[in-house]
Amino acid sequence: MKVLLALGGNAMTASDGSAAPAAQLEAIATAMDSVAALVAAGHQVILTHGNGPQVGNILVKNELAAHVVPPVPLDWCGAQTQGTIGFIILDALEAAFAARGISKPVAVLVSRTLVDADDPGFAEPTKPIGRYLAADHARAMMDHGQTWEDRGAKGWRRVVASPRPLEVLETETIRLLVRAGHLVVAAGGGGIPVVRDSDGVLRGVEAVIDKDLTATLLAQDLEVDALVIATDVDHATLDYRTDHARPIGRVTVAQMEEYAAAGQFSSGSMGPKVEAALQFARTGGRSIITSLHRIVDAVDHDYGTIITADPPTETSNESS
Amino acid sequence: MKVLLALGGNAMTASDGSAAPAAQLEAIATAMDSVAALVAAGHQVILTHGNGPQVGNILVKNELAAHVVPPVPLDWCGAQTQGTIGFIILDALEAAFAARGISKPVAVLVSRTLVDADDPGFAEPTKPIGRYLAADHARAMMDHGQTWEDRGAKGWRRVVASPRPLEVLETETIRLLVRAGHLVVAAGGGGIPVVRDSDGVLRGVEAVIDKDLTATLLAQDLEVDALVIATDVDHATLDYRTDHARPIGRVTVAQMEEYAAAGQFSSGSMGPKVEAALQFARTGGRSIITSLHRIVDAVDHDYGTIITADPPTETSNESS
Repeated sequence: MKVLLALGGNAMTASDGSAAPAAQLEAIATAMDSVAALVAAGHQVILTHGNGPQVGNILVKNELAAHVVPPVPLDWCGAQTQGTIGFIILDALEAAFAARGISKPVAVLVSRTLVDADDPGFAEPTKPIGRYLAADHARAMMDHGQTWEDRGAKGWRRVVASPRPLEVLETETIRLLVRAGHLVVAAGGGGIPVVRDSDGVLRGVEAVIDKDLTATLLAQDLEVDALVIATDVDHATLDYRTDHARPIGRVTVAQMEEYAAAGQFSSGSMGPKVEAALQFARTGGRSIITSLHRIVDAVDHDYGTIITADPPTETSNESS
Repeated sequence: MKVLLALGGNAMTASDGSAAPAAQLEAIATAMDSVAALVAAGHQVILTHGNGPQVGNILVKNELAAHVVPPVPLDWCGAQTQGTIGFIILDALEAAFAARGISKPVAVLVSRTLVDADDPGFAEPTKPIGRYLAADHARAMMDHGQTWEDRGAKGWRRVVASPRPLEVLETETIRLLVRAGHLVVAAGGGGIPVVRDSDGVLRGVEAVIDKDLTATLLAQDLEVDALVIATDVDHATLDYRTDHARPIGRVTVAQMEEYAAAGQFSSGSMGPKVEAALQFARTGGRSIITSLHRIVDAVDHDYGTIITADPPTETSNESS
């Protein structure tokens, strides 16, 4: 089965959120063991990943060194994390493959995602990034054209556009490498955001793209059998954090849309994952939300939250 | 003709050495116009590049933010620059292709270079990197296991290993993409240095690899027709900076080895380029040292310093 696996940026940090190098190396080694298990189970895997904690660290460095070296724009920060996370994944995945006797080349592509220069996100940025700063410090950054918001007691925080991804520009190269038997790592951090200028030239923009929405695009364009959004819980949950909380198993698009409309999923975490999962399921694909260490069970035995376009009665005899 | 082009890190900064984002974007746009000209002339190009000024900036950020976010090791810094420079090259090269009506996919690979854990460079690091610091600041870094040297009036400077590259681990993927018609950008900064532990697992190491020596390795493994080391002068020069300075044109390996043995090339700049060029020419290839804007003349009309294994009398009828 062809599977697109989207790993959260948090899967690449310690459980306490530390993005220190040793913590990242350890977390990624654990994550890659799960990916290798999926490959060992006979699946063809394309991997994408988040980069939130890593970009957060780079932004702090930019800020604190700005009096000595010029800060780099947000699109460059995303590119930096594709290099670093991609490198660690290369080493870790090859080690995990070797431990299971798997021989499979891995390729990490620096990849860009096209967004619309007229996306409403650019006029009204809403995605918070980086650390909180005191008002005067935030105002200094606003003088450089950045948008910051007063978040009360915690201080001020930068907000940026989170435009909808339109196309992963490296899709044809990914397809070629997948066909040649590679496990491809691409569109890290949702892909480096670029817009097409009126003269047709591509230009990086300061924005953050939801990596699960980019994964959905890739899942469609690569015609995968399953999109797996790996997170830190086994299932999406109804009535989350109440005494009648219950996990969602197999569910149709229509049913999941009802849950989402009823406000069952928080806008900051599960909500965007459900939105991305729904988008792929609407095109006829199978979308899975589960924890990283259950991905083999999820793909092979319908564990986790599985969203499909078909009513359960018709799809139940599909499982084997 | 299949050409491996190695671009200096300085080709990606302003003429005053500025690595500010706008300066890098402009310099890379200019550089990619030359690359596109080489493609337009009918050649198949594989591109690698340096990253010295860019890593220098990242090291300053690591240092100045170390009290807030953990510094990342030198191998990660190299990976970061592969992401950033690779991204800028992607956009700039596609724009340069479009301006010339060329339709050719570009792929940027995060790439590692295997080095020997027992390379003498690790025991006695000699390659200076990053900025000068006062003695007390340098000593604080030495307490973290780094090696720093007293450079007199300028202050102290960090030195790291510069091990000899053994293998670009992404060579097979590069070969595949080249065959499929891609212009491949790989092994930026000489490749991210990794060693193989006794259990066979790859691990990043803090080192700097000479990007021209890595280019030589790639040139051999990809069996290119010409290795072009692009720098800021049209030729290597005999009796450089004397009143009888004269450019070196076509030259044999034996003759160039004599010049090098006589101390004609400075150890900090032209020397390593000549060493890398000689290494490829010894295997029967054609090595070229010239400036970036003369690379088409160099490949097609033997402009620049051309090193070949054969005596000039035998090779002169090869040129067309």
